[in-house]
Amino acid sequence: MLILMKQEASKADVEKVKEKVKSLGFSAHEIPGAQRVAIGITGNKGRIDPDLFLSLPGVHDAVPVSKAYKLVSREVKAEDTVIRVKDDDIGGRALTIIAGPCSVESRNQILEVAEMLREVGVRFLRGGAFKPRTSPYSFQGLKLEGLEYLREAADKTGMHIVTEVKDTETLQQVAEYSDILQVGARNMYNFSLLERVGEARRPVLLKRSFSATVEELLMAAEYIASKGNYHIMLCERGIRTFETSTRNTLDLNAVPVLKKLSHLPVIVDPSHGTGAWDLVIPMAQAAIVAGADGLIIEVHPNPDLALSDGFQSLRPDKFRLLIDRLKTLGSFMGRTVPSGVATPISTEN
Amino acid sequence: MLILMKQEASKADVEKVKEKVKSLGFSAHEIPGAQRVAIGITGNKGRIDPDLFLSLPGVHDAVPVSKAYKLVSREVKAEDTVIRVKDDDIGGRALTIIAGPCSVESRNQILEVAEMLREVGVRFLRGGAFKPRTSPYSFQGLKLEGLEYLREAADKTGMHIVTEVKDTETLQQVAEYSDILQVGARNMYNFSLLERVGEARRPVLLKRSFSATVEELLMAAEYIASKGNYHIMLCERGIRTFETSTRNTLDLNAVPVLKKLSHLPVIVDPSHGTGAWDLVIPMAQAAIVAGADGLIIEVHPNPDLALSDGFQSLRPDKFRLLIDRLKTLGSFMGRTVPSGVATPISTEN
Amino acid sequence: MLILMKQEASKADVEKVKEKVKSLGFSAHEIPGAQRVAIGITGNKGRIDPDLFLSLPGVHDAVPVSKAYKLVSREVKAEDTVIRVKDDDIGGRALTIIAGPCSVESRNQILEVAEMLREVGVRFLRGGAFKPRTSPYSFQGLKLEGLEYLREAADKTGMHIVTEVKDTETLQQVAEYSDILQVGARNMYNFSLLERVGEARRPVLLKRSFSATVEELLMAAEYIASKGNYHIMLCERGIRTFETSTRNTLDLNAVPVLKKLSHLPVIVDPSHGTGAWDLVIPMAQAAIVAGADGLIIEVHPNPDLALSDGFQSLRPDKFRLLIDRLKTLGSFMGRTVPSGVATPISTEN
Amino acid sequence: MLILMKQEASKADVEKVKEKVKSLGFSAHEIPGAQRVAIGITGNKGRIDPDLFLSLPGVHDAVPVSKAYKLVSREVKAEDTVIRVKDDDIGGRALTIIAGPCSVESRNQILEVAEMLREVGVRFLRGGAFKPRTSPYSFQGLKLEGLEYLREAADKTGMHIVTEVKDTETLQQVAEYSDILQVGARNMYNFSLLERVGEARRPVLLKRSFSATVEELLMAAEYIASKGNYHIMLCERGIRTFETSTRNTLDLNAVPVLKKLSHLPVIVDPSHGTGAWDLVIPMAQAAIVAGADGLIIEVHPNPDLALSDGFQSLRPDKFRLLIDRLKTLGSFMGRTVPSGVATPISTEN
Repeated sequence: MLILMKQEASKADVEKVKEKVKSLGFSAHEIPGAQRVAIGITGNKGRIDPDLFLSLPGVHDAVPVSKAYKLVSREVKAEDTVIRVKDDDIGGRALTIIAGPCSVESRNQILEVAEMLREVGVRFLRGGAFKPRTSPYSFQGLKLEGLEYLREAADKTGMHIVTEVKDTETLQQVAEYSDILQVGARNMYNFSLLERVGEARRPVLLKRSFSATVEELLMAAEYIASKGNYHIMLCERGIRTFETSTRNTLDLNAVPVLKKLSHLPVIVDPSHGTGAWDLVIPMAQAAIVAGADGLIIEVHPNPDLALSDGFQSLRPDKFRLLIDRLKTLGSFMGRTVPSGVATPISTEN
Repeated sequence: MLILMKQEASKADVEKVKEKVKSLGFSAHEIPGAQRVAIGITGNKGRIDPDLFLSLPGVHDAVPVSKAYKLVSREVKAEDTVIRVKDDDIGGRALTIIAGPCSVESRNQILEVAEMLREVGVRFLRGGAFKPRTSPYSFQGLKLEGLEYLREAADKTGMHIVTEVKDTETLQQVAEYSDILQVGARNMYNFSLLERVGEARRPVLLKRSFSATVEELLMAAEYIASKGNYHIMLCERGIRTFETSTRNTLDLNAVPVLKKLSHLPVIVDPSHGTGAWDLVIPMAQAAIVAGADGLIIEVHPNPDLALSDGFQSLRPDKFRLLIDRLKTLGSFMGRTVPSGVATPISTEN
Repeated sequence: MLILMKQEASKADVEKVKEKVKSLGFSAHEIPGAQRVAIGITGNKGRIDPDLFLSLPGVHDAVPVSKAYKLVSREVKAEDTVIRVKDDDIGGRALTIIAGPCSVESRNQILEVAEMLREVGVRFLRGGAFKPRTSPYSFQGLKLEGLEYLREAADKTGMHIVTEVKDTETLQQVAEYSDILQVGARNMYNFSLLERVGEARRPVLLKRSFSATVEELLMAAEYIASKGNYHIMLCERGIRTFETSTRNTLDLNAVPVLKKLSHLPVIVDPSHGTGAWDLVIPMAQAAIVAGADGLIIEVHPNPDLALSDGFQSLRPDKFRLLIDRLKTLGSFMGRTVPSGVATPISTEN
Repeated sequence: MLILMKQEASKADVEKVKEKVKSLGFSAHEIPGAQRVAIGITGNKGRIDPDLFLSLPGVHDAVPVSKAYKLVSREVKAEDTVIRVKDDDIGGRALTIIAGPCSVESRNQILEVAEMLREVGVRFLRGGAFKPRTSPYSFQGLKLEGLEYLREAADKTGMHIVTEVKDTETLQQVAEYSDILQVGARNMYNFSLLERVGEARRPVLLKRSFSATVEELLMAAEYIASKGNYHIMLCERGIRTFETSTRNTLDLNAVPVLKKLSHLPVIVDPSHGTGAWDLVIPMAQAAIVAGADGLIIEVHPNPDLALSDGFQSLRPDKFRLLIDRLKTLGSFMGRTVPSGVATPISTEN
């Protein structure tokens, strides 16, 4: 059930509705909109009688929500969600480019990458510090040390950090260092982590599990939203199919489907989605014209020496080429791509 | 094994190599190139000694082919294959747009659609006359009558026909009426049909089975090529996965993968690939910037009344919009989209 | 729609109903039962008025059929179908064991295998003569020569032949030599072949495509039945999934599902289903207690030298062990396993 | 690398080897066997020189391990692992039957079910107290209250508890009440939880994710074992495929594959695996003759009123029938099924 307030409804009217919801034993979620406020009701088992709310002051309408997910659905909020991270918007006019290495490997590595990305205009720096790995014997990341290097690199370049939060134990620590919390594909069904992330005051990049349907991805987002954190990006990163010529099957169909069903920004990860660096540029281009709000891309100064996933990382020169191409495609889609900072001409050159 | 001839090799040199191949009990396939001729050898079980050929006049080199598919691989032929259909090229600079209804339903319907498509500049008319259907009780197409209507519509508008050949029994008939033979997804493993189509003197649009790997698609193309017909388009039309929000999962990753592994043109079918008309435009756009050489799209003047697949057919106005958008994206990819014919203003209007 | 005749209905009553059906433009399928005759109606688009039939003499009831498949459904025929092949029944009390090599490789090979199988009590001999292969360059079978060897081996041992019919061109030839026509997994969607097989007067072993749902398998069977051939065995032989530790994922769940939805016998192929000889015995055992009516198993006197699929073939000693074990499990399920012919004691031993 | 000790090796010899391993910066895992002790080495990146160990006293051999999983592999330990839970063994001669409702719903419900199960001879009681659910608005279990009811029911009947541990936060609490910790399918990739469970002193039932390969399941078990907990049961519960006639596709092939690759007991869950109560008996039977060491089955006194998964729960009468049938099949496999306690004849009857 969604309660739509009149445009002229007062803050007191909104409060009265929320109290009524709580008095019935349900949860009330205030959803601010450009024109009017709406209040989502969750926690009810069956149908709620609209008349309970229609008579309250300031209430315009009370409409049932047909989907299993509520707060993240377009039904409940027709306008696109725009997430503000300091001076940058995600889901607005500018395409969001998140880039960086799979893992933070050393202070020098991440500083070098960040500097290169800044010059190209990238505003969001990715890099794994806590790495969930299939084998207990694989490199698990630099952990706290990695977070510190990331923070230093981001602060030096004025960028924002996106890094994975692997479990509830390290959530506090990651949230302290990172601007955006990434929930990895293997944790998409980790409902306890989703709830904790929903309580954190940080935007979330939620990756689709390689075996999740679009509906399950939206239900995972709903877990986060149900705890009060609506700043969620949905990330398509490839699903598991019978095909073996790519590491995963990047499911670009999910982009327009998600944009239709939900108001949340959609980000595409062509690096994990394909698992091959030479597929990243075509699939990144395709993602943008399919309607994605942004990309997350693995970039490594020296992919052959990467500690993880080198084969799917772009070299800096290829990445620059991609950004150039995205400018044209972005403009085709009515979007912008942030421009690079003019690099001071060094005297040596 | 691939025999590369010298640029200055004579026709007699080529013949001598082919005779040598046959004398060993294998098949020789002459593959013309821009610079030089090559001769593919198939039918051998094990390794062939290169020295058997290196001493022959006009032979430049003899190189083994590493893939299971030979004639359709980039290893054997580095340049893109361009297929000429009367005045139009497929796989060349112009993007190939194939459009029309799922089924030919009546003379009027196909004439109306063809006229509309011609005005927009479409050169290839699709329409099913022999329809393979999951149920024996479903509409199986107008058959010969459908072929006649298609031919009439194509002749009136100067377009070329793409229509499905369902079995070897009707192959002759379909080949008589159609300019391009479509092998449907359900027939991709029908090796006897592939062989017959390989003997036909008609270009082929080979659809990927919804459960075929990219390698299996290339092996199916190899069946056709092994019989001497190299004019093959590979068509991605969606694979079967666990996802249910789309009818199939259109696998755009296959586009750059196929372009890397094979010299054949790649066509994408976003109508069957997604099964939803409102996903066709975003996925068609995505296909082009992922590197596809063309699209095959279902267009119906009145989708609600279509006898099959109406829910995935574009209305004419949406289709025109798509073609407009493709012009910009085509130019981004260094490709052209044929322009529409100016419609003579009728006096009645 | 299904017309149930009264027990006392005459042959003339049945004919009258069939004429009525035809007069409406539909097809009538007489389905004999233990107690009474039923007449299935197919070819109608919408609902048929039951009153059209209820007033006819000898008609007991007229009931709609809810599934897309009609003639092969339990709704239309509650009793199990038993297929008689000379003196042997399929789908009756005796479990059906079909065994033999993947391919007929030589006269000696098939005679040797057949003799061994006869001694164990096997009544059905399998062996590929026309082989559909993924690569045009792979061994395609001994063709007519293979059929002749098969027939000779079967005649010598009193066994029945099961061999694959690859296409409509060779159907006549295969039907001449074989007792049962196998439609391979790759041909399950080859509707033209299904129709021709439906016109043949031979029982059919219909293999599930590795990408077919249970419903699609039943629709393929319906194609055959709709042409008048109701002697169909459904064969589960493994589906394509993400798992790579087995060649396919043998889907034993399909066995009880098929037995619930259809009256046709269900055969399981653990050789192709798993692709590994050491999984054949456990999965064959499992198939029987899951309710299968029989098994089709690859047996080769010398798997290491097999021209195809040697890695999934059982050696004769392992096969004998399996048959012994099946006797106990068969009896647990209220089924019998035919006993071997006492081998005449050779004087040398 | 695996160090095999001589039969006569002393405890001091073993300690010396372990110290050597630690001095190299690796981890040593003592693996007791019937005949001799072995020491698994993990944590090394590359190859270890066997000579480093062969010269130490009591060392019989030093052999490399070829798989990515070490401690859980048959290579490292050839004999089956038997897990002792009070007086009952898992993975030994007796088949392990775990039964109970999907969720603990009330004190009465679980007491009633436990009493019924005890009478049939079941030794392990399942029931969810902390329930991971796809929707944040679904019933999440009775939590601590549920654990208390479970404990009471188990103590009254002398049974052992198997219940799910949903996250690291509640692990301590669940471990206090439960005899066996279940890691659910959605948590199989939750590596932090696996590590915590590896530190707990409780046997673990590890469910295969519906999208995990067999190798990934074994890697998840390796995570647990690498922390020192070797008491792990592997549980097949159905994988996600394109088939929709069952909720999941129970992959019985995994049973013999897992038994070949690993020494750990294998349990099958036909309730979640199929999602339909009428498939549970055939698939349970099949699991046992495919080589499973036990079953976990949902039983509910009144499935129609169950708060979760009622459609896949067996009624008590059907469950009793299944246990009877398993006795015959168990004996066929050389296994036993615990017999029920004679119910005292009540005077009322």
